Amino acid sequence: MARVTLATIAKQTGFSKFAVSRALSGKSGVSEETRVIVQQAAADLGYLRPVSAETPNLLGIVFHDADLVNSELHLLIQTGFQAEAQRRGYQARMIWTHLVDEIEAFALNCAGVAMVGPHMRESMYKVKGLGIPLVRNGWIEPLETFDMVHGTDHEAGAAVAKYLLDLGHRRIAYVHGAPHYRGRRERFYGLREVLEMHPDVQLRQMTFDAEYQFLDRLREIQEEGFEPTAYFCAHDGLALTAMSQLMHLGYRIPQDVTVIGFGDFSAATQITPNLTTVKTLGQEIGAGLARLLDDRVHDRSNPAVPLRIMVTGHLVERHSSGPAPIRAVDGASGR
Amino acid sequence: MARVTLATIAKQTGFSKFAVSRALSGKSGVSEETRVIVQQAAADLGYLRPVSAETPNLLGIVFHDADLVNSELHLLIQTGFQAEAQRRGYQARMIWTHLVDEIEAFALNCAGVAMVGPHMRESMYKVKGLGIPLVRNGWIEPLETFDMVHGTDHEAGAAVAKYLLDLGHRRIAYVHGAPHYRGRRERFYGLREVLEMHPDVQLRQMTFDAEYQFLDRLREIQEEGFEPTAYFCAHDGLALTAMSQLMHLGYRIPQDVTVIGFGDFSAATQITPNLTTVKTLGQEIGAGLARLLDDRVHDRSNPAVPLRIMVTGHLVERHSSGPAPIRAVDGASGR
Repeated sequence: MARVTLATIAKQTGFSKFAVSRALSGKSGVSEETRVIVQQAAADLGYLRPVSAETPNLLGIVFHDADLVNSELHLLIQTGFQAEAQRRGYQARMIWTHLVDEIEAFALNCAGVAMVGPHMRESMYKVKGLGIPLVRNGWIEPLETFDMVHGTDHEAGAAVAKYLLDLGHRRIAYVHGAPHYRGRRERFYGLREVLEMHPDVQLRQMTFDAEYQFLDRLREIQEEGFEPTAYFCAHDGLALTAMSQLMHLGYRIPQDVTVIGFGDFSAATQITPNLTTVKTLGQEIGAGLARLLDDRVHDRSNPAVPLRIMVTGHLVERHSSGPAPIRAVDGASGR
Repeated sequence: MARVTLATIAKQTGFSKFAVSRALSGKSGVSEETRVIVQQAAADLGYLRPVSAETPNLLGIVFHDADLVNSELHLLIQTGFQAEAQRRGYQARMIWTHLVDEIEAFALNCAGVAMVGPHMRESMYKVKGLGIPLVRNGWIEPLETFDMVHGTDHEAGAAVAKYLLDLGHRRIAYVHGAPHYRGRRERFYGLREVLEMHPDVQLRQMTFDAEYQFLDRLREIQEEGFEPTAYFCAHDGLALTAMSQLMHLGYRIPQDVTVIGFGDFSAATQITPNLTTVKTLGQEIGAGLARLLDDRVHDRSNPAVPLRIMVTGHLVERHSSGPAPIRAVDGASGR
């Protein structure tokens, strides 16, 4: 595949190379309409700005300013990104915003940009339309032409399933919480793919929100005669909710029920018993974002082929998990 | 995390550094028992042989000699691997074998080794136990500590689901063929995840083998009153089977039924109508294997953190796919 240049875009759009160059550099001298058409063509063609003496020696990272749920993860990503950027001879710069114009202005001063969290598609295509290497941490559409670096959500679900099966658990609840987070769905899919191979295993999802809560859902599934011996929680925060509420009800952890989290954030070792969870390597994800950006800036792999890079986490076994209780195996319904 | 050295392994096993060094270099002077213990410890600890003037300037790739189903893909992987290895200043060497001893002897002369296809776990752990960087193309266990480079199987299934939904298809068959290939299961999972969000869509799997064939399974689902308007086939070879047999039955493609493949191999454009399929970028996967090996040899990312790198394919729309037929939308059962 031939490299996409300013000339390719000029030919495609009918504008002069000069106009195309102005439109992509964010400089004045072309109309807003021309700019939009040129940037659209650049994004469609997969144009990447070539490295020159003028390329800023700076990698940028944009966090979504409304996404506070993942603060601890984002701080780790930021630290890892900065360290790896510096190790590779760049300065790292960071911004918290969801505004398209702010993201565009920020990107124009960067050699490459990482975008973390639930950003608008318009912002992503804006950066892509400038020909600036962009790497995503966050959900994108199937086979969409963006580079992505993230954790092993799907595999984590499968690994937890195998771990619970080995411990003898056969009635398992997936504590989903609010269902619209993509990563949580991925973990569920991984869990389900392994468990559904075992006809003697039952799996229920526990979806709830601020109104309809964990305890409401628990009562509901118990009324259906389903008493979980293990809860896999979509993130550590949900595991804290599940553990504390189960303990209030008199369940002993892990003797009566096993609870497993996802993330391995500070709270996992603050709560007693310490939480068995899957460690997400935030710093390594940040480093991976910087590394892939550097590779893209220096054209070290085919620019026409987007990559997904997943940083493999691991199960951290602590004290909230144990063998399925005997009475559960015997088929008794527990309390 | 501190770097694992010969001293770490010596301390762990109680052998001298000299013995550890001999055991890991494949040289004589230690008993076979010692060698096994040392290599096991090296694999468990994640030891990586440091680069030195003695490191062979050679990247190796091992194909499984019994796996001929994927010949065309493997040839592409080989070409891409060789080109990228050379671009990075290595020689590339290739071997077709499944024998542990042959793989060990081969690996000892390489700076890093890629293993493609259904290799035995023993072979993988043997190479890992020598401290030689190993990257897999092929199935590994969830969160297992090997690097992996492969295609976007899972995403491809999801992308095909969205494509078929957009074309109006609501009764969809997944032509699975023999069910034990992991990649085929991944594509099914991706397809199912999208389709199950749509309550008006029905999905059936068509699993069969040399005895119980495509037509047997088709008759079976038709007897259940299920008439697919679209077939997503787990690979192009199965799409040829489905297309030819459906055409024999008098179905017109794509007017009556849509057929989609996976792989985009030569046959996809040899058959009429040309096959709509998802392109797997074999050369890019090969290049990715060489690139990650080179990064590992030169310690460019945290050796304690395995990576999964997926090379994003894309849908190639040709003439075997089209809108769902009107009569199907009307609910008539077709022929």
